[in-house]
Amino acid sequence: MPDLYQELIKLADSDMYPFHMPGHKRNLESTPMKGAFRCDITEIDDYDNLHDAKGIILEAQQRANRIYGSEETFFLVNGSTCGVLSAISAAVPEGGKILAARGSHRSFYNAAYLRNIQIKYLPYKINTKYGIPETYTADDIKQTYDDSIDAVFITSPTYEGKCSDIEEIAKICHLHGIPLIVDAAHGAHFGMGSKSALPENAVSQGADLVIHSVHKTLPSMTQTALLHVQGKLVDRKKLRRFLSIYQTSSPSYVLMASIDLCMKYIEEQGDEFVSRLIEYRKLLENASAKCRYIEIPGKKDIPDAAKVLIYVKNAAMTGHELYDILREEYKLQLEMAGEKYALAIISGCDTREGINRLITAIAQIDARIADGKAMNSEEEHVKVTSLPGQVLSIQSAWDADKESVELQSAIGRISGEFINLYPPGIPLIVPGESFSEELVCDIARYIEEGLTVQGIVDRKEVICVKQK
Amino acid sequence: MPDLYQELIKLADSDMYPFHMPGHKRNLESTPMKGAFRCDITEIDDYDNLHDAKGIILEAQQRANRIYGSEETFFLVNGSTCGVLSAISAAVPEGGKILAARGSHRSFYNAAYLRNIQIKYLPYKINTKYGIPETYTADDIKQTYDDSIDAVFITSPTYEGKCSDIEEIAKICHLHGIPLIVDAAHGAHFGMGSKSALPENAVSQGADLVIHSVHKTLPSMTQTALLHVQGKLVDRKKLRRFLSIYQTSSPSYVLMASIDLCMKYIEEQGDEFVSRLIEYRKLLENASAKCRYIEIPGKKDIPDAAKVLIYVKNAAMTGHELYDILREEYKLQLEMAGEKYALAIISGCDTREGINRLITAIAQIDARIADGKAMNSEEEHVKVTSLPGQVLSIQSAWDADKESVELQSAIGRISGEFINLYPPGIPLIVPGESFSEELVCDIARYIEEGLTVQGIVDRKEVICVKQK
Repeated sequence: MPDLYQELIKLADSDMYPFHMPGHKRNLESTPMKGAFRCDITEIDDYDNLHDAKGIILEAQQRANRIYGSEETFFLVNGSTCGVLSAISAAVPEGGKILAARGSHRSFYNAAYLRNIQIKYLPYKINTKYGIPETYTADDIKQTYDDSIDAVFITSPTYEGKCSDIEEIAKICHLHGIPLIVDAAHGAHFGMGSKSALPENAVSQGADLVIHSVHKTLPSMTQTALLHVQGKLVDRKKLRRFLSIYQTSSPSYVLMASIDLCMKYIEEQGDEFVSRLIEYRKLLENASAKCRYIEIPGKKDIPDAAKVLIYVKNAAMTGHELYDILREEYKLQLEMAGEKYALAIISGCDTREGINRLITAIAQIDARIADGKAMNSEEEHVKVTSLPGQVLSIQSAWDADKESVELQSAIGRISGEFINLYPPGIPLIVPGESFSEELVCDIARYIEEGLTVQGIVDRKEVICVKQK
Repeated sequence: MPDLYQELIKLADSDMYPFHMPGHKRNLESTPMKGAFRCDITEIDDYDNLHDAKGIILEAQQRANRIYGSEETFFLVNGSTCGVLSAISAAVPEGGKILAARGSHRSFYNAAYLRNIQIKYLPYKINTKYGIPETYTADDIKQTYDDSIDAVFITSPTYEGKCSDIEEIAKICHLHGIPLIVDAAHGAHFGMGSKSALPENAVSQGADLVIHSVHKTLPSMTQTALLHVQGKLVDRKKLRRFLSIYQTSSPSYVLMASIDLCMKYIEEQGDEFVSRLIEYRKLLENASAKCRYIEIPGKKDIPDAAKVLIYVKNAAMTGHELYDILREEYKLQLEMAGEKYALAIISGCDTREGINRLITAIAQIDARIADGKAMNSEEEHVKVTSLPGQVLSIQSAWDADKESVELQSAIGRISGEFINLYPPGIPLIVPGESFSEELVCDIARYIEEGLTVQGIVDRKEVICVKQK
């Protein structure tokens, strides 16, 4: 079966002249981006329509479908963002209720806002050693579930590569007759390659709706993603409706071709891709084993092989310092930095040369860390943090008249904005929740420490719902 | 100032190694789409963030801004669709009311659905000669305006190239203190080149929010668009909020670079681009002047030079037949076909060779039309069609429990779906409106005539709101 890219190149090579959009007319003289323009078309005869796929786009979606083994798969050109928005909008009625973790992606909160959905939170768990969000088990769901809940939303793997027990969580959800939505944006590579090398995929673990970013861990262009559906708990007509609401009516064939090429690559070279990924991770773990302060946790702590958490023990160096040294001195651009670690994303498309550069850099940086700076090791445990009380729905608070209030005067007031601490980017407060004294003190401290706190005005004011 | 593409190529040519997303790692061996992968990155240091632009993306947006002369311009990577959704969501309060034409883009209705906005319709006017939607004057607004209206939404130019009087409509809106949103998806080239060659741009005509598809008529990749803002009638914070809701949190740098390259192209070669466009249109009009049946209306009827409406007089041939002949025999792929015309989109990126092929084809097709088939000429006038009565809001009807009903039994029932007739794609009925006897007869006739009617089940049933 030809892939979408081949179909587009066939057209570019043919005598067919374009009296249609796009305005560049595949005229390569108008751009240095020649390859992209050459296969950039609109919905013309024989080239199908993403929003009502019946031809070559449907066939391409079916290729993805075969690889993941889901019942139905949709290509997304507006990222996992539109997958999360569509999944929640279709699975939860307007004004309904969803059970989810506080550390869900911003698009989760946006869906709750748009559809006036009430969020019930799972316990907010942080792994104190690494300072990263923890994951969930079936017991967590059992203990927080109540009959008013319409769906469960779980992020697995997390940004940092930790995995929840999707299989058991799916069973609990289905026992209650509600769908499980898994934001697996970072887990499109799961389940690929030889058995047991990578964690299982949320699709085969029985989730009803699974969102995969194809670009994050597989070779596809940024902004491309997949949505998989199975079972009968989610109305597929409604799902299609929302996919066509949250995605452009002019989807890019370049992005769609990139997804299909990626699926073909996985079909043909997936085993080698995964083998290289696993090998690279192993090489990095081995290198860190020789270090005094730098530690790269293994599969047990970070099951996702693509996430290389370069942790610095005993506060001998901050994650940000490590990140900056890698970037400035070694020209290694990492994904992000936390207080205690820098995070590298690796894939089967990395080169051995690149991995070796990182190994050399880690060894050299570890060697130069002065012993004097190290503090006592912090014990690893899971801390459950309390969340602010919810007074108004996200929708009524975010849409309300608002005013800026001095942080210290905000105690007892209702927030009209999200305030996020980066990393990990989890909201400290969500519109509709009230500021406690404890939270106000925490925010003041974060600002003083120079951390990135989004949603604060001039470093000292917060946005509150106007009092009548 | 370097463009975004140059910045990305600089990175690709540098020694900086990517331990971040996307998973393809710019490794060109993993894809035939080498050019696209080379400049496809994520939000790393120095490369700014579309959702909080402060660096090179802000500078690129400012270039677009200078070209159009608006106060502020945003790049859109989810097409004009996300521009329309964001504009309406920001300009009209949840549950508010908007004045608009029936022929608005699907994204307009989707915004009304998501934000539970009530639509008051302008008179639904069709140009009977060409069978295309007509445009609006300030008088139309004056006659339908009432104090409960929060914003006005106008599509100009239309898909077929007709223009409303935006300048006067903006004045009326501002007199009432409400914003004017212009869906100018098809008019990104307006106002460019030497004076008077093309219609004025909605930005300089004083609209508050203007949405431009960059890909439709200018050389940029499909799915790229711009949103311009001016004045104080729309809360810009709210606008930014909705832009970040309706667009992916992983925007494609390839798409953004394509917008910036397009703006640079217009800055440097815009005059030549427009001169060629005007010349091509003139050549086509001249060619049709020698035809017996084929007519390409001039600037007076279709002011947008980019829209070549190839009209067949006296029903001597249907638009669909013309479209098929052009495609199958001449390998000329047009944009679409109506009952009485085929529509070609041209731009300054067309080649003279392409235009000549179309000129030759038109002359040859005109010559072979048998005189016997021609009927009496239809007089040109503007027909105002009545619209179905609205019983429920779009939101309550589209979200309601629904059932399939035989078309003939639907009289008096409330529609639970959109039913659209293509072309021009304007809804015959919108969720929440009731089926009249006249509408049911019309729909039955359209189906019988083999026209494309979307939203019908098995060619005979319609979706209605369940009766209690």
